[in-house]
Amino acid sequence: MKVIRDIGKMKIYSRIKKKDGKTVGFVPTMGCLHEGHISLIKNARKQNDVVVLSIFVNPAQFGKNEDFSKYPGDLEKDEEIAKTEGVDIIFYPSEKEIYPKEYSTFVNVEALTGNLCGKSRPGHFKGVTTIVCKLFHVINPDMVYFGQKDFQQAVVIKKMIVDLNMDIILKVLPIVREADGLAMSSRNSYLSKKERNDAAVLHKSLRRARDLFSEGEKDANSIRSSMKDIINSKESVSIDYLKIVDPIWLRDIKTIQNKALVCIAANIGKIRLIDNTVLGDHENQ
Amino acid sequence: MKVIRDIGKMKIYSRIKKKDGKTVGFVPTMGCLHEGHISLIKNARKQNDVVVLSIFVNPAQFGKNEDFSKYPGDLEKDEEIAKTEGVDIIFYPSEKEIYPKEYSTFVNVEALTGNLCGKSRPGHFKGVTTIVCKLFHVINPDMVYFGQKDFQQAVVIKKMIVDLNMDIILKVLPIVREADGLAMSSRNSYLSKKERNDAAVLHKSLRRARDLFSEGEKDANSIRSSMKDIINSKESVSIDYLKIVDPIWLRDIKTIQNKALVCIAANIGKIRLIDNTVLGDHENQ
Repeated sequence: MKVIRDIGKMKIYSRIKKKDGKTVGFVPTMGCLHEGHISLIKNARKQNDVVVLSIFVNPAQFGKNEDFSKYPGDLEKDEEIAKTEGVDIIFYPSEKEIYPKEYSTFVNVEALTGNLCGKSRPGHFKGVTTIVCKLFHVINPDMVYFGQKDFQQAVVIKKMIVDLNMDIILKVLPIVREADGLAMSSRNSYLSKKERNDAAVLHKSLRRARDLFSEGEKDANSIRSSMKDIINSKESVSIDYLKIVDPIWLRDIKTIQNKALVCIAANIGKIRLIDNTVLGDHENQ
Repeated sequence: MKVIRDIGKMKIYSRIKKKDGKTVGFVPTMGCLHEGHISLIKNARKQNDVVVLSIFVNPAQFGKNEDFSKYPGDLEKDEEIAKTEGVDIIFYPSEKEIYPKEYSTFVNVEALTGNLCGKSRPGHFKGVTTIVCKLFHVINPDMVYFGQKDFQQAVVIKKMIVDLNMDIILKVLPIVREADGLAMSSRNSYLSKKERNDAAVLHKSLRRARDLFSEGEKDANSIRSSMKDIINSKESVSIDYLKIVDPIWLRDIKTIQNKALVCIAANIGKIRLIDNTVLGDHENQ
């Protein structure tokens, strides 16, 4: 396994592989790898000749008062995990390499980004689509892997790929959870022991939503209300949003027809976590 | 020569050529080809194995009150010219093929677009960079050709290519002019005979700017003032902007150091034309 920090070298590497007829699988991350990322890498490893993992904490997707400067990072540990999982290249560029002085081009998906995290974090998805578009041009992948925990992110990137006529297959893999159901996240490491225990209410509330739906409940507000009762039982947890939306356009729905996405963003102490589940999708946990 | 209307077929064609080790030269146009376009095609023909010419009148780069619906088009004549000049493929997609229902992804260069045509035509360059980015993904060119008449467009696209880490060489070719100096433009065909004669003042004023500069005049306002006198001598011509800017960042300058871009946008009757020249650049006419 090699670590490449230079855009030019990364381009040459992937173009040589592509010229040799190899397929390239790409797992974009902000580092601090956990079981969720490992599931993405394992799938990329199975489905491609070459696996590139990028590690870049992207300033363009953090708001002014968010945790960019504090985002956790441990390259040494990430390298070990990547090596064990059979990654070929870690692409680990500096901020200056990605956003040189006078950088000024942005890619924005105008639909799909007005609700949920797009509403809570103005400009966030513009930062996400911009960095992902750049990484696609550098790495030139055949397949790219994202986790369902960031459901809206996956939908937005899918839309960018289709709208901009890119030749990339996007794979979205299921959320990987801790034993008590908490979705794996790099930010979990910041939680105190008590907060960590309390955080389990997020998944508990999603399970309640699934139970209610399977018992025949179709009214979004009734489901949301039961979920809120569960979440609000923990004082350290405050809801940012708790929404039930259609999984295609992410618009709020009142009555659930076939499928619906239930999604939560909540602050546990000072740490913002997100989670979701798709009602009417039996593969979802 | 073949006309391809389908994005999927265009992708397959260019990918097969690339796989065979061929280079692809790309000339994006809105059709109604004139000598300016022909100069681009001739250069693309010389420098590449395959030449793709696109014809697409891009609604996203026209403002609400602009001439999108009236933009001239004559595919049959364009086909003849393209064939004569050795074009391999005309890519001629429908509006629905490029912007299907629910289309919503846009590429925007935030610097460079606040002055000149970016100021007069809000949203214009966002439309330009979006369509060019899409066409790049479809056609996958090695080299792309633009004319210097749209100086700001070329600079903005160059910035997009660099910022988004695209592997495309941009070539900007000199303005091709009529005998009296009027820059070739598809829109010239709309001018009445009198307007056509009057339109020559645009280039006449640019020549005056070059003369004054070569005589030692460095003051932008003095040069602009002399130019205005020439242009305003024709009643049918009204200036939209007449600016002297630095050719890198397109910011207004007061005193010319080495190089400066002099650019005009003017309405001749109801037809908006643009023209420019670079002072301090001896290759410029």
